[in-house]
Amino acid sequence: MNLTTATEAELLARRDRLREQYAALKGRGRSLDLTRGKPSAAQLDLSAPLLSLPGPEAYTGADGTDVRNYGGAMGLPELREIFSGPFQVPADRLLALGGSSLELMYDCVAHALLLGLPGSVRPWAAEQSVAFLCPVPGYDRHFGICEQLGVDMIPVPMTADGPDMDRVEHLVARDPQIKGIWCVPKYSNPTGVSYAPETVRRLAAMPTAAPDFRIFWDNAYAVHHLTDAEPQIADVLALAAAHGNEDRPFVFGSTSKITFPGAGVAFLGASPANVRWTLRHLSRRTIGPDKVNQLRHTLFLRDADGVRDHMRRHREVLAPRFDLVERVLTERLGGTGIASWTRPEGGYFVTLTVPDGCATLTVSLAAEAGVALTPAGAPYPYGRDPHDHTIRIAPSYPSLPELSEALEALTVCVLLAGVERLLGT
Amino acid sequence: MNLTTATEAELLARRDRLREQYAALKGRGRSLDLTRGKPSAAQLDLSAPLLSLPGPEAYTGADGTDVRNYGGAMGLPELREIFSGPFQVPADRLLALGGSSLELMYDCVAHALLLGLPGSVRPWAAEQSVAFLCPVPGYDRHFGICEQLGVDMIPVPMTADGPDMDRVEHLVARDPQIKGIWCVPKYSNPTGVSYAPETVRRLAAMPTAAPDFRIFWDNAYAVHHLTDAEPQIADVLALAAAHGNEDRPFVFGSTSKITFPGAGVAFLGASPANVRWTLRHLSRRTIGPDKVNQLRHTLFLRDADGVRDHMRRHREVLAPRFDLVERVLTERLGGTGIASWTRPEGGYFVTLTVPDGCATLTVSLAAEAGVALTPAGAPYPYGRDPHDHTIRIAPSYPSLPELSEALEALTVCVLLAGVERLLGT
Repeated sequence: MNLTTATEAELLARRDRLREQYAALKGRGRSLDLTRGKPSAAQLDLSAPLLSLPGPEAYTGADGTDVRNYGGAMGLPELREIFSGPFQVPADRLLALGGSSLELMYDCVAHALLLGLPGSVRPWAAEQSVAFLCPVPGYDRHFGICEQLGVDMIPVPMTADGPDMDRVEHLVARDPQIKGIWCVPKYSNPTGVSYAPETVRRLAAMPTAAPDFRIFWDNAYAVHHLTDAEPQIADVLALAAAHGNEDRPFVFGSTSKITFPGAGVAFLGASPANVRWTLRHLSRRTIGPDKVNQLRHTLFLRDADGVRDHMRRHREVLAPRFDLVERVLTERLGGTGIASWTRPEGGYFVTLTVPDGCATLTVSLAAEAGVALTPAGAPYPYGRDPHDHTIRIAPSYPSLPELSEALEALTVCVLLAGVERLLGT
Repeated sequence: MNLTTATEAELLARRDRLREQYAALKGRGRSLDLTRGKPSAAQLDLSAPLLSLPGPEAYTGADGTDVRNYGGAMGLPELREIFSGPFQVPADRLLALGGSSLELMYDCVAHALLLGLPGSVRPWAAEQSVAFLCPVPGYDRHFGICEQLGVDMIPVPMTADGPDMDRVEHLVARDPQIKGIWCVPKYSNPTGVSYAPETVRRLAAMPTAAPDFRIFWDNAYAVHHLTDAEPQIADVLALAAAHGNEDRPFVFGSTSKITFPGAGVAFLGASPANVRWTLRHLSRRTIGPDKVNQLRHTLFLRDADGVRDHMRRHREVLAPRFDLVERVLTERLGGTGIASWTRPEGGYFVTLTVPDGCATLTVSLAAEAGVALTPAGAPYPYGRDPHDHTIRIAPSYPSLPELSEALEALTVCVLLAGVERLLGT
């Protein structure tokens, strides 16, 4: 039944049934979690060999470095080679560093504030104000970095091709305080959108009022395909260089969702000047990254084909979960006229769009029924979704039966919130 | 022969012989390295089991956490328990984080600048100026952090009991811009001094003009003994709390020189308010440290006794090197009146003091003869040793024969520089 065209009587009847279903859900006292893009245990098991690598006799890099000791600021060359292709960064400009790409992005903004970047007139902290463009809906942890470090956020809408480039070009051309833009260019969090070639070209080429404008290119899902297409996006570093803006992109990536989120390797790729800048401040902060972990990853993943094969095994675990989301949402919400959702071809999220003003209510109904969702508004700067209509679903972590149960419950909450809204109650 | 009381003729004769010896050294074309406090391969081999740990089935923390996945901002509780004793920090206030303590110290200063600390009136970057006291000679990488982040450095002399506390108390009581002091309280780098209990008490108790003054307590050599004494220093956190200055100390430590420098675990211990402050900004930067590496360390070191046993094996490798330094320096420089040196009971360094104005010459003579030393002046802020007389010797990395050869060569350079100086040439 299309609820938007239903009579009031029909809606009232439906509401009664939904309220009963909802009461039953609450009665079950379940605790299910759709909040974070966290790999499941089955995915982590795919990297089990890492737990015993590099092995008792393996502590030497290809160039003879003893990986156990200090040094090696750029990271292990052989691991940087493996990821040069997936991240589209020449290996000599790709740094393999510690932990997570979130750290690298955070430190990049922090050091731009403290020291300024190549091309900066002064440290960003000495500017009147600094702002970043935030394509929305986007990744809440990007916005958390800005909030923490006092960087203002300007939302720009996402389209099916990436950020609304007319809007982006208009803003950055005029305002020198706009110093950056957050981009998840492939299988974007949470919309699943991959940037069209023309979007990447315009980002690389556009004139900016700020001489030190930066693209924070968080290629978090570079190899995280859910279909056979396995597309490559346009090469932002090459395009920026071709348009005379070589220093504009900082490329980030990690193995967090390839091997272990808690024990991976993160990567930063950029122009020679940006790499020198990064190494200059890194050298005061650390005497080198965890090269044993980098050797461990090298031995396990072997080469770019090894990464591809490994990611296909992830897909075997993940794809049925995304299929389940599509099936349950279609069965329960299809044709109701009050919900739409994305069908991502990669990445970790489905974006569910509910009627304006219904996201917060839906999330709180779900919470009371034992289904944890990312807070409504999280994919927006300052947690404010102006339409209050975006819900992020992360289907990777629960088991299939749990996911099925959580989705069934969620759809009841979506329908109940939507019907209440249509009835004006 | 005591060169300081020798006749000119005796000195000229000695100089001729030294010049011959030095020419012979250069002729050998050797390349030996006494620069950094880097464990030798023999020391790294002591931790070989880490290369295969935690093992194929081990990925669960004591509380059931899957260490492979995201989370666990404070670090693995069982590892924090192990190091609670050695670092004298209650486990609930001891964070086990990533990589190196240098990173943690750097990030602490960076965030004090960006955000301010508990007790700060404003972020340090918004102050007119910020200065740290730097006991000298001290650790060059501490000074590198200050230099990089624009923190002024005020040298204060080291004594046999730690920093000259009359001078420290005098300075911090008057100047609110003095926000911190660097301390390596045990087997200090490079002097080997351990702080006397009264020094620690005075640091913990002294009035400071800055409300947000911090002690950066880099307990880098907490368990790195070279004798049976294995002394414990006074508990700075407890003393600070007892004197109403609970938030004053930040305690740092790591396993860099316990297991692998390139793949260790670093620790931060502090008051509840400082720990909350740290976790607040950490939570925007990372979704947890490398808990697999922490589990690996837990399984390998087991408990505080395991750490003690392991460090005794390090001592078996290290002590003969320090004995060799003492023997060669005594044989070659004893009674010459132009050199004195430390006999450390722990840590990684020997400080060699040469006549004023001779350190730079000695280091450059050694370099030309193929013996790399830390640059003269490095143990001083801005690399400026006002007396140009301090040379840091790091004997851990070379093999015993290499070390012997390097020390013999070094003593020729010390004597040659000293004689040239006495002759005014």
